Amino acid sequence: MNPLRILSLLAAGALLSGPAQAVAASAPAAPLTAAPAKAAGITRIDPTFWWVGMKNPRLQLLVHGPGIGNRTVALSYAGVTLDGTQKLENPNYLIVNLTIAPTAKPGKVALEFRGAKKLTYQYDLRARTTPNDPTKVQGVTSADFVYLLMPDRFANGDPKNDNIKGMRAPAVARDSMYSRHGGDLKGIQDHFGYLRELGVTAIWPTPIVENDEPKTSYHGYALTDFYNVDKRYGTNEEYVQFVQNAHRSGLKVIHDVVLNHMGTSGYLVQDAPAKDWFHQWSDFTRSNFRDAAFNDPYVSQYDRKQFGEGWFDKHMADLNQSNPLVSNYIIQNFIWWVENTGLDGYRVDTYGYSERKFLMDWGAAILAEYPRIGLFGETWVQGTAQQAYFAQNIFPTVDGFKANLPGVTDFQLQYAINEALTRDAGWTEGVNKIYYTLQADWMYQDPMRNVLFLDNHDLSRYYSVIGEDFAKYKMGLAWLLTCRGIPQLYYGTEVLMKNYSNPDGKVREDFPGGFAGDQKNLFTTRTGQEAEAFSYVSKLANYRKTHPVLHSGKLMQFIPDQGVYTYFRYNDQGEAVMVMMNSNKEEKTVETSRFAERLNGFSGGTEITTGAAVADLKTLRIPGRTAWVVELKR
Amino acid sequence: MNPLRILSLLAAGALLSGPAQAVAASAPAAPLTAAPAKAAGITRIDPTFWWVGMKNPRLQLLVHGPGIGNRTVALSYAGVTLDGTQKLENPNYLIVNLTIAPTAKPGKVALEFRGAKKLTYQYDLRARTTPNDPTKVQGVTSADFVYLLMPDRFANGDPKNDNIKGMRAPAVARDSMYSRHGGDLKGIQDHFGYLRELGVTAIWPTPIVENDEPKTSYHGYALTDFYNVDKRYGTNEEYVQFVQNAHRSGLKVIHDVVLNHMGTSGYLVQDAPAKDWFHQWSDFTRSNFRDAAFNDPYVSQYDRKQFGEGWFDKHMADLNQSNPLVSNYIIQNFIWWVENTGLDGYRVDTYGYSERKFLMDWGAAILAEYPRIGLFGETWVQGTAQQAYFAQNIFPTVDGFKANLPGVTDFQLQYAINEALTRDAGWTEGVNKIYYTLQADWMYQDPMRNVLFLDNHDLSRYYSVIGEDFAKYKMGLAWLLTCRGIPQLYYGTEVLMKNYSNPDGKVREDFPGGFAGDQKNLFTTRTGQEAEAFSYVSKLANYRKTHPVLHSGKLMQFIPDQGVYTYFRYNDQGEAVMVMMNSNKEEKTVETSRFAERLNGFSGGTEITTGAAVADLKTLRIPGRTAWVVELKR
Repeated sequence: MNPLRILSLLAAGALLSGPAQAVAASAPAAPLTAAPAKAAGITRIDPTFWWVGMKNPRLQLLVHGPGIGNRTVALSYAGVTLDGTQKLENPNYLIVNLTIAPTAKPGKVALEFRGAKKLTYQYDLRARTTPNDPTKVQGVTSADFVYLLMPDRFANGDPKNDNIKGMRAPAVARDSMYSRHGGDLKGIQDHFGYLRELGVTAIWPTPIVENDEPKTSYHGYALTDFYNVDKRYGTNEEYVQFVQNAHRSGLKVIHDVVLNHMGTSGYLVQDAPAKDWFHQWSDFTRSNFRDAAFNDPYVSQYDRKQFGEGWFDKHMADLNQSNPLVSNYIIQNFIWWVENTGLDGYRVDTYGYSERKFLMDWGAAILAEYPRIGLFGETWVQGTAQQAYFAQNIFPTVDGFKANLPGVTDFQLQYAINEALTRDAGWTEGVNKIYYTLQADWMYQDPMRNVLFLDNHDLSRYYSVIGEDFAKYKMGLAWLLTCRGIPQLYYGTEVLMKNYSNPDGKVREDFPGGFAGDQKNLFTTRTGQEAEAFSYVSKLANYRKTHPVLHSGKLMQFIPDQGVYTYFRYNDQGEAVMVMMNSNKEEKTVETSRFAERLNGFSGGTEITTGAAVADLKTLRIPGRTAWVVELKR
Repeated sequence: MNPLRILSLLAAGALLSGPAQAVAASAPAAPLTAAPAKAAGITRIDPTFWWVGMKNPRLQLLVHGPGIGNRTVALSYAGVTLDGTQKLENPNYLIVNLTIAPTAKPGKVALEFRGAKKLTYQYDLRARTTPNDPTKVQGVTSADFVYLLMPDRFANGDPKNDNIKGMRAPAVARDSMYSRHGGDLKGIQDHFGYLRELGVTAIWPTPIVENDEPKTSYHGYALTDFYNVDKRYGTNEEYVQFVQNAHRSGLKVIHDVVLNHMGTSGYLVQDAPAKDWFHQWSDFTRSNFRDAAFNDPYVSQYDRKQFGEGWFDKHMADLNQSNPLVSNYIIQNFIWWVENTGLDGYRVDTYGYSERKFLMDWGAAILAEYPRIGLFGETWVQGTAQQAYFAQNIFPTVDGFKANLPGVTDFQLQYAINEALTRDAGWTEGVNKIYYTLQADWMYQDPMRNVLFLDNHDLSRYYSVIGEDFAKYKMGLAWLLTCRGIPQLYYGTEVLMKNYSNPDGKVREDFPGGFAGDQKNLFTTRTGQEAEAFSYVSKLANYRKTHPVLHSGKLMQFIPDQGVYTYFRYNDQGEAVMVMMNSNKEEKTVETSRFAERLNGFSGGTEITTGAAVADLKTLRIPGRTAWVVELKR
């Protein structure tokens, strides 16, 4: 979720969930929708369970229960040490610090909470499953093709979970863009075959954790429970199974997470452990959404504080990660999801909005436990330097921050491809903007880990932005699937779904055929340009899948000439693909002598999307508004 | 000089100086306009003289004379050692390497060139004058206000030097934009008083060294002699005197230099020491003018070579600085100019077009001899990262290059102020672009050393670009003279000179009043808006001159709000200036509570340009299209 989107929703009155709400530690405990209590008097313990043999042997439990803060704790379990406890401002919480020796055996650790009447909680210590299972935590690399979807809007596979008793949102209402529509994990799973046919190798659903907010909860970016899947999508167990099934189907799973804020209906907000778990404002204060304030050398404390501590929206409480307990709570949670499910990567929402030290600690902790995991952050920022600042880069520590995030969502290249397809070429304009944007890659440690995209759930849909021009459509897809990095498609782009992000949120419409009663089913029946579009993407994506030169091959670009932009992917094994984009309306004749260092040794090629033979590499006549993807042959 | 300018002049047919001309080392010696020979048979020796006591004791002489390469060399002078000689491809040259001990005394070193008939050359070794003279090599800092002018177009102070016998260009022709107009050093000097009144502290003339090209030599960027001032501007002695007089008048002098290329009429081209002194092409090949190729991680060798080795224009031979003799020749030359004149700073034309190692060597050598000197390079590039890459920055060595240039011409901020004055404010547009561009300063080692400007000799004139809108005019000037860095004005902007760089070069018109017969004399008689403009610039510049808070004060900027952009310059001594720009047409009311961290302690202020008192700092009503420069008072 991002500022402009938020602002547009606000304009539409969609996100106003009531008057400003200051968080009060003394608020009465609200009914919880968390894991079932395992001991009367203890509502929950986060993390809900843990493992032996983690690289970091320390575990910090947040215990919740009426008056639990007044109790003392004792335990006796071989290899598990009680390091101490910590009271919080709210007596309904207690922090319990443990160390779990590598020698500890999985089992139930009896945690005794001593007071007027002793409470015992059987805390589950499990055996790890990820370390020796290559199907788990596979990572996300430039070999992948990522499909971003909104689970509520993709397909409804299990009508039984549409309306869950006790949850705050009204019932499913498919006629409103801001209500729940009923999509779920089962719905996604039912279409694994479709995704495989399309050439997808990784699924990125918008957040699937509980978002029990009364309004606009469908997008998932206002979590109310760190440890539970939203029941309208499925159970925790079903999610574990979902990841396993995805892996069996050759699909990876990317878990979309928010580190910066959480929904105000969550139990941690409603019955907050302490005031300093959230950034407090006397009056509701929204973030200024200017990531520039994160590292502006001339920043005012006013702007910086409002950026980092202002709330993203009225129903999104801003987590105070400078509180080490909060930081630790969040870090453990994200390790928990990986170990529990074997998920392959994290996409981090609103990356730069969090605290400097926390971001570095979070990244370091996740990567220490799971060096292979895919990590990329949302960086809806201006300019490659600012984007690279939030990724692993060549910069020294700047203003106390040195990013350890392997990749970012490459907004700069999204701006560039957008410009290339909507503006004539000039010295810096049009297709030349791709050239300049890629050139700036010298600032990244490894730009191959960046995620490329044409649009996403916050942006106007690609097909609309390019004026529903099918020739341009193919050009952009050709670029997406052959340029450097990890390509990501937004659900429905393959069947020409359209619409603008302003003002009505229709970029999040249901996938036709995903819901009972849909008149059109684009999963199964496509005709005309919808069929042609699917086939174009599928052909290129499947070609890409089997041609590592398009994943890990080197990139060489040539300065665009008269609106024609040419680059090559090539490797030391002698494989090479030439991509030539003619951004002009009219045909261009290209003399290729200047490409000699890449064309030498090749006698011809095949244009992948049409199968046409390219017999003469010396002089090419490329039609207007066309991208050629030419596999070169000796 | 820069690509777009070149391309536009080409379009106008102005720069075509004849068919492509490959440099031949065997070309016959051309008549020289260099220093007079001091020994028959020796045409010249570069450097033409030198000094004892330089930090670098080594000196490399390039001796020129018919067949000189076949001679041996001997000398006997206390403290001067002959390290050896080196023959070149062209027998008319000989390299003589000397070491000059700190103990050597100034005097004439008799260099004996032995052959059929002995030649003796009395080489002049002088005493240094810069080290203990604080009026020399003063440097250029943010305390300065730089005035950029074209000597041929500013004022003709000495009609006797208008037409010099033997020089290739036709006589002065003021009716042609591409001919000589007759301006000279004396003309500039005659107006030191005018410049002082305006508040200027440093003069930057476009290059004053000899440009003896047959066409379009007036701009000075195609030098034909590294060691002589163009006689149409004055003699070498007059230039030395010019710098001294400037210093006495409280004006510094910036010497504009080109490292990358030289005019094809120069003796080093006409009778080249060796083919490898210039980049050779079988057919004339122009640079692609894409600095991006300098550090594109995906660059082709084709593009990189064409960028760095392609010629800037047909009459501009591209120097091969990877030849250590060429590198050394250029480095010594620029040390020579400093020591000889006491000039205060260098502006380096087409900075990124030179070789990596040479640029680093050049900067290191100049700074080693003159740590105080002002150095800034032309960086007509895209994006702050690319601009910072060519300055002292926070990056590690990238692609073999680590810049040591203290400052750059800040094109990024020029784009930004241009946008602020010509486009409405948006999330990133209009005045917000200044905010974002300054934010990117985190990449520089010290952005205070960058040179700010509204326009220059290659760009359309500021007043035309902003639609001759006098309200906007003042806004831009207020920004120029209060923002961080070293402000630079292009001659005539203070009296509203206008015009566009395309297609007719009229941005280089004569300053009215600088030439005999001018009907209008804006040096002495200004009325209406011309008078108002001069007065506005003069008032602000003179205020700036006496208020160090605007030189070295810290900068704090606030996120623009509804098209109103506010920043502060302040220091630890409690001085503070608030600059508020309202980019909207209509008046805006600004509640200043968010500026508390800068306004606390101040009760009011004075708007400098109008003298108006600002009694209430709490709520400000700023008229449309206005910049306020408010000195805050306790």
